[in-house]
Amino acid sequence: MALSSTLLENAVDQLATLPGIGRRTAMRMALDLLRRDTTAVQRFAEAVRKLREEVRYCQDCCNISDQPVCGICSDKARDRGLICVVEDIRDVIAIENTRQFKGLYHVLGGVISPMDGIGPEDLRIGRLLERADGGEVREAVLALSATLEGDTTCFYLNKRLHERGVAVSMIARGISVGGDLEHVDELTLGRSIADRKPYEQSVRR
Amino acid sequence: MALSSTLLENAVDQLATLPGIGRRTAMRMALDLLRRDTTAVQRFAEAVRKLREEVRYCQDCCNISDQPVCGICSDKARDRGLICVVEDIRDVIAIENTRQFKGLYHVLGGVISPMDGIGPEDLRIGRLLERADGGEVREAVLALSATLEGDTTCFYLNKRLHERGVAVSMIARGISVGGDLEHVDELTLGRSIADRKPYEQSVRR
Repeated sequence: MALSSTLLENAVDQLATLPGIGRRTAMRMALDLLRRDTTAVQRFAEAVRKLREEVRYCQDCCNISDQPVCGICSDKARDRGLICVVEDIRDVIAIENTRQFKGLYHVLGGVISPMDGIGPEDLRIGRLLERADGGEVREAVLALSATLEGDTTCFYLNKRLHERGVAVSMIARGISVGGDLEHVDELTLGRSIADRKPYEQSVRR
Repeated sequence: MALSSTLLENAVDQLATLPGIGRRTAMRMALDLLRRDTTAVQRFAEAVRKLREEVRYCQDCCNISDQPVCGICSDKARDRGLICVVEDIRDVIAIENTRQFKGLYHVLGGVISPMDGIGPEDLRIGRLLERADGGEVREAVLALSATLEGDTTCFYLNKRLHERGVAVSMIARGISVGGDLEHVDELTLGRSIADRKPYEQSVRR
């Protein structure tokens, strides 16, 4: 579609770069922004610009943080010997919401993906190994996606962390809690049978 | 969800104000923006800010335009006696894409909606009536949504335009071209029977 204004054209082009947004939706967003006050739109643009310009990451776990060390890493009540390795900030939020994990985190910023040209050096793995070298870390829990890329990353991290005397575990894979058996895919179902646990252990929690 | 950074919190809040975007999607967008170059994000924010700050509307049809008079209004080949009245810019684009309309447009900027506190004075109806008073306009084609608000607006416009000696027509309502009868709702089907046309006229185009 050809638009009668290059300003609108530019804004639609930029909005369409957001993940999951096509040109039609971008157009709807642009028209919505046009209906707002100038100051409201300035506030919007400012929040986005500042996010990227002024963003800081925790020097220990690489989680996004306004302080040099994030709230989780500076919490004395947490188990400093246990580190949960995740892909991005969303995973930290999701795991925190479960209230099941009392250790620290390490945010990799992605997974190893040769297809996208992402190698170990593009992720925050160096900092993780430094923390492992520090001697305080007892166990690393790998909580990465159950994809080929996630598995590749787990394989690589296990090797590197094992050399440093850190025990490595992976989060359990199986059927969803509350899930219907008939809707579970074959791979997951097969895996959940292979990884079965004695009844007493399974119902404990 | 509580985030570890107010910068991120702000950006997610702002992105979630976009139409159809919830906090989960806004979070995904924010993380995507974080992965980009600072200059790319600046360009993004700038395009959005400029859109609202520097936007101009055509002085005749109120369509968005970088010039005082838009490309359609300044096109000498178009029929200046025929004006298609639409809700917003998207409708102009959609109708232009059909290549079936050779007249000019008038963009109202919405429809009359007492529920949302939008009256005739909140729309660009004054300018439309001025154009009608100019004497050049022969016919106004109302191409508004087939909703209660759209119909209310049509009723109001018909009255105002009729007083000024302008013929008023509405775009046809009926079943979609290529549409299956069994999926058509009852109101539309009833309307399409009431508005039936002689066979010779129907197949002409």
